[in-house]
Amino acid sequence: MKTRLTEALGITCPVIQAPMAFAAGGALASAVSNAGGLGMIGGGYGDAGWIEQQFAIAAGARAGCGLITWKLAEQRHLLERVLALDPAAVFLSFGDPAPFAPAIRQAGVPLICQVQTLRDAQQALDCGADIIVAQGADAGGHGEARGTFALVPEIADEIARQNSQALLCAAGGITDGRGLAAALMLGADGAVIGTRFWASREALVHPRILDRALAATGDDTIRTRVVDVVRGLDWPGRYNVRVLRNPFIQKWHGAEDALQLEAGAEAAKWAAAQAAGDPDIATAITGEGIGMIRSAPPAGDILASLMTDAQQCLARAASAAGRASALT
Amino acid sequence: MKTRLTEALGITCPVIQAPMAFAAGGALASAVSNAGGLGMIGGGYGDAGWIEQQFAIAAGARAGCGLITWKLAEQRHLLERVLALDPAAVFLSFGDPAPFAPAIRQAGVPLICQVQTLRDAQQALDCGADIIVAQGADAGGHGEARGTFALVPEIADEIARQNSQALLCAAGGITDGRGLAAALMLGADGAVIGTRFWASREALVHPRILDRALAATGDDTIRTRVVDVVRGLDWPGRYNVRVLRNPFIQKWHGAEDALQLEAGAEAAKWAAAQAAGDPDIATAITGEGIGMIRSAPPAGDILASLMTDAQQCLARAASAAGRASALT
Ligand SMILES: Cc1cc2nc3c(=O)[nH]c(=O)nc-3n(C[C@H](O)[C@H](O)[C@H](O)COP(=O)(O)O)c2cc1C
Ligand SMILES: Cc1cc2nc3c(=O)[nH]c(=O)nc-3n(C[C@H](O)[C@H](O)[C@H](O)COP(=O)(O)O)c2cc1C
Repeated sequence: MKTRLTEALGITCPVIQAPMAFAAGGALASAVSNAGGLGMIGGGYGDAGWIEQQFAIAAGARAGCGLITWKLAEQRHLLERVLALDPAAVFLSFGDPAPFAPAIRQAGVPLICQVQTLRDAQQALDCGADIIVAQGADAGGHGEARGTFALVPEIADEIARQNSQALLCAAGGITDGRGLAAALMLGADGAVIGTRFWASREALVHPRILDRALAATGDDTIRTRVVDVVRGLDWPGRYNVRVLRNPFIQKWHGAEDALQLEAGAEAAKWAAAQAAGDPDIATAITGEGIGMIRSAPPAGDILASLMTDAQQCLARAASAAGRASALT
Repeated sequence: MKTRLTEALGITCPVIQAPMAFAAGGALASAVSNAGGLGMIGGGYGDAGWIEQQFAIAAGARAGCGLITWKLAEQRHLLERVLALDPAAVFLSFGDPAPFAPAIRQAGVPLICQVQTLRDAQQALDCGADIIVAQGADAGGHGEARGTFALVPEIADEIARQNSQALLCAAGGITDGRGLAAALMLGADGAVIGTRFWASREALVHPRILDRALAATGDDTIRTRVVDVVRGLDWPGRYNVRVLRNPFIQKWHGAEDALQLEAGAEAAKWAAAQAAGDPDIATAITGEGIGMIRSAPPAGDILASLMTDAQQCLARAASAAGRASALT
């Protein structure tokens, strides 16, 4: 499948695997890149040693690197170390990318900016982002309130007005060929996919956590601040994180102030559960698309069947539109 | 364009105009039906006299009727009066449709159930709904938390498992051909569209409110309970309503308890503003798609260009998929 994204990045599937903090290492990134998409190492909060290790694991396969922008702003030297790894792209999200754009551009590395609002998109375009990722609240992980469905075409219109060279990816709720096909219809050049690859053989996810998630429906996820409170992460107020509900989340969601007071004890309990994979306490970071995911095959297989299904969807739709008109 | 929905309803465009309380009367419903979609009268909270008047205005054009289910449950006799109007469909949302399904079926009228979660969809299928509308939080009006993008395909899968006779529409964020095309890709047979028709010549919307909305972006909407508190409407706690932010909403959102205390004075102020169309106080009920809407043409023109654009999207996508594979 050819889109402006595949041509710009030299890939064969218009799919970027999301840089999921802790979950997306070199094994996942290389599996996705080797299957024709673009794999990303989830640099997250910016542990340089871990990032370097994961690039080593990717072992020559193309891989980009994601960084959480407000966290990068606290440790600006990190960008140099990441650029030294010759990443296929740098993917910034959650904060103002402007201070980092010049160095990335100078290194000749594509800049991908994930945005949550139209206003964010304008900011990203202003600083010369090559690819804008319109991330809807449907997504797993941190994000904001706007839904994928209307955010993507609204940003497509903004790109057309402001800089039609910039490319657009949709993120949030895309788990299969239907989602990729829909993203293309909404005006995107490709998709950024997290949750679907989180549930893959190569992702760094505890098997007990994974098993619980594979049994969940989309109704079982929630956007909350509980996880950041218990981890003591100082996320800017506009963001929260979509996770799977479990007894721990149910207990503390809406009671974040009380959790803050007991943060010490609860943090220890949560960290132990995270290590042991106790699904009643530990957190599974998944999007609403989890309801369509029932197994965790190799990432390359996921991508291959996603592409086949997307092409079938597009073919069916073309015939719904009336074969004659679809070909004019 | 032919889909299972157009065949089932005998329409030429797979589009149902949403039954928007107060905004969707007989003029809008008949305009949409005459243009090839299915128009709906927004019966909302169930003012039988108003509903009968609007059916009279529709003057023989096919029109369905929407009712808010929890409100219908408080005045069950209303259903008989609505069925006596020979509606093209009854559209129930926000509550358990089971008590009303038998009478609707007996009258030979198609039952459309709008749902906000997978669980709701299962309930609607259990009571024999002919059409399920998967409504995402992106939508204007009342709704819940799940996003359109992942809700639609997840419910499509559920329908395939449980009752593949039932049809599926997507609702929430669909304003143009891109949205309709995307909805079809996600597995829907058609779309329910509100906000786009709210901004039409035939909708019952104050021109000053409309003007303010036409200048807004999708970032300017919010889900809140403020409007129901000030109107004294006893909505079940799981629902809130997406509206355009304005100074009134900004003042009271998050301060609903305080608003409750001053409800008398604020209600009078709000009602007066609503009548006068004061956009700083009165409420514009719009979805996130408002950011893609810049004018309010006749509803028939909206539908016609939406269909043309949808067919173009589908045609472009088919060629992206590779012309050969798209036609096998
Ligand atoms: C487990 C997990 C961790 C994530 N971590 C990050 C992150 O560190 N940085 C980031 O920009 N986005 C992160 N995201 C969000 C993704 O970039 C992307 O927006 C999202 O996964 C897309 O929605 P989907 O999960 O429905 O595919 C994460 C998502 C998941 C599921
Ligand atoms: C002004 C307005 C009023 C609405 N009133 C109702 C209603 O009375 N009953 C109902 O079931 N849905 C109502 N809705 C929701 C619609 O049925 C539908 O889900 C929604 O409009 C779809 O999203 P969209 O607005 O992005 O097109 C309303 C929506 C709007 C915009």
